[in-house]
Amino acid sequence: MRLDDVAAGIRPADAKAKQAAARRQQRLTKPPGSLGRLEEISIQLAGIFGTERPIARDTTLIVAAADHGVVAQGVTGYPQAVTAQMVLNFLAGGAAISVMARARGVELVIADAGVASPLPEHPDLRVVAAGRGTADMTRGPAMREDQADACLEAGIELARFAAERGAQVIATGDMGIGNTTAASAITAALTGAPARETTGRGTGRSDRELEHKIACVERALDVNRPDTASGVDVLTKVGGFEIGVLAGVVLGGALARRAVVLDGFVSGAAGLIAHSLCPTVLDFLIAGHRSAEPGHRIALNHLGLQPLLDLEMRLGEGTGALLATGLIEVAAACLSDMATFDEAGVSDRAPTDLAEAST
Amino acid sequence: MRLDDVAAGIRPADAKAKQAAARRQQRLTKPPGSLGRLEEISIQLAGIFGTERPIARDTTLIVAAADHGVVAQGVTGYPQAVTAQMVLNFLAGGAAISVMARARGVELVIADAGVASPLPEHPDLRVVAAGRGTADMTRGPAMREDQADACLEAGIELARFAAERGAQVIATGDMGIGNTTAASAITAALTGAPARETTGRGTGRSDRELEHKIACVERALDVNRPDTASGVDVLTKVGGFEIGVLAGVVLGGALARRAVVLDGFVSGAAGLIAHSLCPTVLDFLIAGHRSAEPGHRIALNHLGLQPLLDLEMRLGEGTGALLATGLIEVAAACLSDMATFDEAGVSDRAPTDLAEAST
Repeated sequence: MRLDDVAAGIRPADAKAKQAAARRQQRLTKPPGSLGRLEEISIQLAGIFGTERPIARDTTLIVAAADHGVVAQGVTGYPQAVTAQMVLNFLAGGAAISVMARARGVELVIADAGVASPLPEHPDLRVVAAGRGTADMTRGPAMREDQADACLEAGIELARFAAERGAQVIATGDMGIGNTTAASAITAALTGAPARETTGRGTGRSDRELEHKIACVERALDVNRPDTASGVDVLTKVGGFEIGVLAGVVLGGALARRAVVLDGFVSGAAGLIAHSLCPTVLDFLIAGHRSAEPGHRIALNHLGLQPLLDLEMRLGEGTGALLATGLIEVAAACLSDMATFDEAGVSDRAPTDLAEAST
Repeated sequence: MRLDDVAAGIRPADAKAKQAAARRQQRLTKPPGSLGRLEEISIQLAGIFGTERPIARDTTLIVAAADHGVVAQGVTGYPQAVTAQMVLNFLAGGAAISVMARARGVELVIADAGVASPLPEHPDLRVVAAGRGTADMTRGPAMREDQADACLEAGIELARFAAERGAQVIATGDMGIGNTTAASAITAALTGAPARETTGRGTGRSDRELEHKIACVERALDVNRPDTASGVDVLTKVGGFEIGVLAGVVLGGALARRAVVLDGFVSGAAGLIAHSLCPTVLDFLIAGHRSAEPGHRIALNHLGLQPLLDLEMRLGEGTGALLATGLIEVAAACLSDMATFDEAGVSDRAPTDLAEAST
């Protein structure tokens, strides 16, 4: 499916279902509003699924992995080989996201979106690579435009496949040594915030190393001058293959009318690109958590998203999104399965006589 | 078991297991510290269970329900009959906590700690009532001291029973029309904060009604002058039967060396009473969430607990604690089941040569 057709095909959430859900929340056996953010999320889910009693039980989490040419500039704390090693760790079930997915019963899809080292074939590895790592964005574009398109289309396809297999919730995750540098550049380009504010320590850098990383982001933006009105151009110039795939997952999830749960900073950059291509994706997006990376707050503010969790996490892999899916499942279940005051025979009126008697 | 014996029997968490867990966290395949609060929780769990690979999969949530004589003063938005009606709703599976427990696979224990109206017998209802609702604390003590003792002992017993049946995690929940008024008085007495700061709108009161509620809390403290160094005296004078039971659950959970997850404001007041009786309970306590009730922040600060969730919820029933148990389960699983760098063949060294080359 062509990108323009996808963007044009994404329809807004169902306003009538949202209204019906909001009315239903008022009749459930609890004080109105007392479930806080869960009520907001449940009403959003009603709009996504077009029903006042949504279900958000089955989650597929798509982890896209790729390498980044900018690591040649020494912006990271780990060698590039770690990207491939961690993909193998995902496949072997030893990574944080693997353990969490088992504990929560979430289906993991691991996608090679462009890892530099060759990976062995594996039944659980989806190869959608547009190349073997991006070029160094401090010296020119990170990728060609046809590669950016290919990433987006691969992500759209991954989301479509997850939705067809029954996922109500699609969550995003990333792996890529160097990808917080790309996310910083994307966030700066698409929000207008200075690189100094969108760039953090990633996997843990010293002050001097952080200054160097900021300088690299500034140079990448200066050398490439991405068209900040075009998500595809920003992805081409300062993006990453996995970020492009995840932006496609957001678009494809919205097209399939599924809830799309963003992980942290790198997924947030993918969300910014998808939003630039089609602002209606916002109806389908839920921010799983707030990452400890400072640029993530800027991306979330730009999108107007309030994260569900704030646990000082900064791992990526989809770990923050996955934890949030447990809350989202429960938010839907409360709206759909709680008894109403009438059904339960519970009084929902203020005892005005008592209240008056007390004054 | 006598209360003094319980308090004396609670031993601190295992410091060596915590150290071993902290070292293990450094060897797992992720940047050190990148799982944020989950790492802290996992290390606490290691200390509670005395192993560097803790499990926190099986949760029992104890919901204690009772009525409050202070409702005669018109401090609440719902009639007293709602307490009993909601207990029936718990037993029928229609309340928020019922729906959440089903979704998350958590075992619910519903305890009648002193509901005013008679409840029908039910196989899932544990009757541990010390009376049929407290007396009006604005006119004298809410209960007799022997009733306070009975509540605490009943809670200790409920926790012991849950632990014996295999729960690794014990979570607290409450139901009681009028119980935020009691929680406000307890929080003021045990933290020293003024009633005006510990008293909120509960299930939703107008400005005038809030002023009246504050005045009632102030009157209860003034009439009873509880001994602020004694959790039992505070419980007796301005407490509630369900709050006493939950304070007992905290003590019993700590005695059985289980993780005890506090729900919101009312459970927080129970935590303050348990802490006053035995400060070592802190080693076993996890604050599930921060309630929207302003007094809860004061209680958490006094205990030095940082809540895992902040979803603007203010329902009680254990809903905030239950959501947190999902995070706690995953925190333990990551520590216990993730691969180490050695096991996974992942490089954990900074590429200093690359970093130097880039400057």
